[in-house]
Amino acid sequence: MSITVVGSVALDSVETPYGKSELELGGAATYFSISASFFSPVNLIGIVGTDFPQKYIDILKSRNINIEGLKQVEGKTFRWSGRYHKDINQRDTLDTQLNVFESFKPTIPSEISQVPYLFLGNIHPSIQLDVLRQAFPQFTGMDTMNLWIETTSDDLQEVLTRIDILFINDSEAQQLSGENNLKKASREILALGPDILVIKKGEHGCVLFFEDGESFSLPAYLLENVVDPTGAGDSFAGGFMGYIAYRNSTEPEVLQQAAVMGTVIASFACESFGPHRLLLLSNDELKNRCYEFIQQTQLKSSPIFSF
Amino acid sequence: MSITVVGSVALDSVETPYGKSELELGGAATYFSISASFFSPVNLIGIVGTDFPQKYIDILKSRNINIEGLKQVEGKTFRWSGRYHKDINQRDTLDTQLNVFESFKPTIPSEISQVPYLFLGNIHPSIQLDVLRQAFPQFTGMDTMNLWIETTSDDLQEVLTRIDILFINDSEAQQLSGENNLKKASREILALGPDILVIKKGEHGCVLFFEDGESFSLPAYLLENVVDPTGAGDSFAGGFMGYIAYRNSTEPEVLQQAAVMGTVIASFACESFGPHRLLLLSNDELKNRCYEFIQQTQLKSSPIFSF
Repeated sequence: MSITVVGSVALDSVETPYGKSELELGGAATYFSISASFFSPVNLIGIVGTDFPQKYIDILKSRNINIEGLKQVEGKTFRWSGRYHKDINQRDTLDTQLNVFESFKPTIPSEISQVPYLFLGNIHPSIQLDVLRQAFPQFTGMDTMNLWIETTSDDLQEVLTRIDILFINDSEAQQLSGENNLKKASREILALGPDILVIKKGEHGCVLFFEDGESFSLPAYLLENVVDPTGAGDSFAGGFMGYIAYRNSTEPEVLQQAAVMGTVIASFACESFGPHRLLLLSNDELKNRCYEFIQQTQLKSSPIFSF
Repeated sequence: MSITVVGSVALDSVETPYGKSELELGGAATYFSISASFFSPVNLIGIVGTDFPQKYIDILKSRNINIEGLKQVEGKTFRWSGRYHKDINQRDTLDTQLNVFESFKPTIPSEISQVPYLFLGNIHPSIQLDVLRQAFPQFTGMDTMNLWIETTSDDLQEVLTRIDILFINDSEAQQLSGENNLKKASREILALGPDILVIKKGEHGCVLFFEDGESFSLPAYLLENVVDPTGAGDSFAGGFMGYIAYRNSTEPEVLQQAAVMGTVIASFACESFGPHRLLLLSNDELKNRCYEFIQQTQLKSSPIFSF
């Protein structure tokens, strides 16, 4: 099945202990699309300026991403720059220039309004609501951030009642729920609307929470060379949603497998500046790392309990 | 099989957001022994003062822990006090009084010198070496801490060449190896001697590293009510080592299962001040939480890779 993603396409400038990149292809919807495209056909809805390089358009096309909904308008593309610490899990945002993204009013082309899987990237909740008025998916995922949790509570609460799965990181989950404990936080958040909550913990893995109180935890893939973690969370969501669209199922066991795919795709995303490693990734490499990850996290045999 | 543990027995005074305890039964060897005693007969080697309450002796005896090697001498018992933050993963040590523990010279009674499993708790590496001159185990585990990594490098390196499995937390692993990345750190540390390295990451779980480059990661059990995490790491090691002594095997698949036991026992240790929850724990409760943990971390079915 196909999937549509609505969100940011950006030019990123990033400094890490391992080097730096300038005006690299970035943005949540970019990482999401490239990652999801390993599993399913992807439609990307976004906006860029006239400075957006043709080579980046070509990259998206090379992954068979449908960019009919990627508007190019007069002005500059959304730009983000950040610096990662020696502890690569810490970063500072140096500069954010919304540019053309500030006036982003996504239009869903009618031919993709019925696409069964939809992902609302981290944008203003009122824009997410606007997308939900134009699209009629079977299953909708979303991301959000601290800024919207702080400043747009009403709109955010409204979106949360209308989506199926929410992807946020642990600190956002704590902020949204007012609870430090993740299990308690998950209950508060699921009560706001989503059927499934995925808490992303970066190098510490992820946890899925379900409405019936069940959960599923995975560690992250143990990476030896983290070059640039930018886009890892979006790649996780892209791999996850792309896999469920490919399976056309949201059964708990498929969601568990989707978490494996998200984890493994996200690990590749960290291995280069920008999406370069993902663009070089073969299906075989992806499968092999999935097998390796399963070996590294799944018990070979069950404990014996006769003590 | 039996297991012997050498280490601290203490009186702990702890403050957490959920309350406080005073002169509670504590110490690494205490938590280790109680946790290991679910799986195997345990011999405890330690030292306490004349202030050590008879009721705590009775508690250890109630778990069938052999305390023949627990010396009681004139003076005060080792005392530790600490305060946990609202984020319960952070704590400050308020006071450490070594008292009789300062002159701890463990003597291994000859009748237990051949006990096949041995655990050297977090004590001065020269004392750990002294124990290794008196005991002839098949398989030895150890713990250490930042103080010994900083101040007793030669002795510590010597112990590391003589043990089989090292349990440390992530920051200690980074300190010992000089590497931030855990995978790189593990290689440096395994090169110092141990066959197996277990990195404890608190609420983020644990990772086992093997000499052949393989690893095995588990998340922690998702706890809703963390009352006092004191002793969780020692309980993890106790459950882990107790399980391998019970299985009398150090095959990788048994070590994986041991990590499950350590994780689950440690989760119970966090649910009360001192070891109270562990002392109330039944074998059935332990098994049920193991099953629950396996449900929460092990895939119901394998991913499909036909994309």
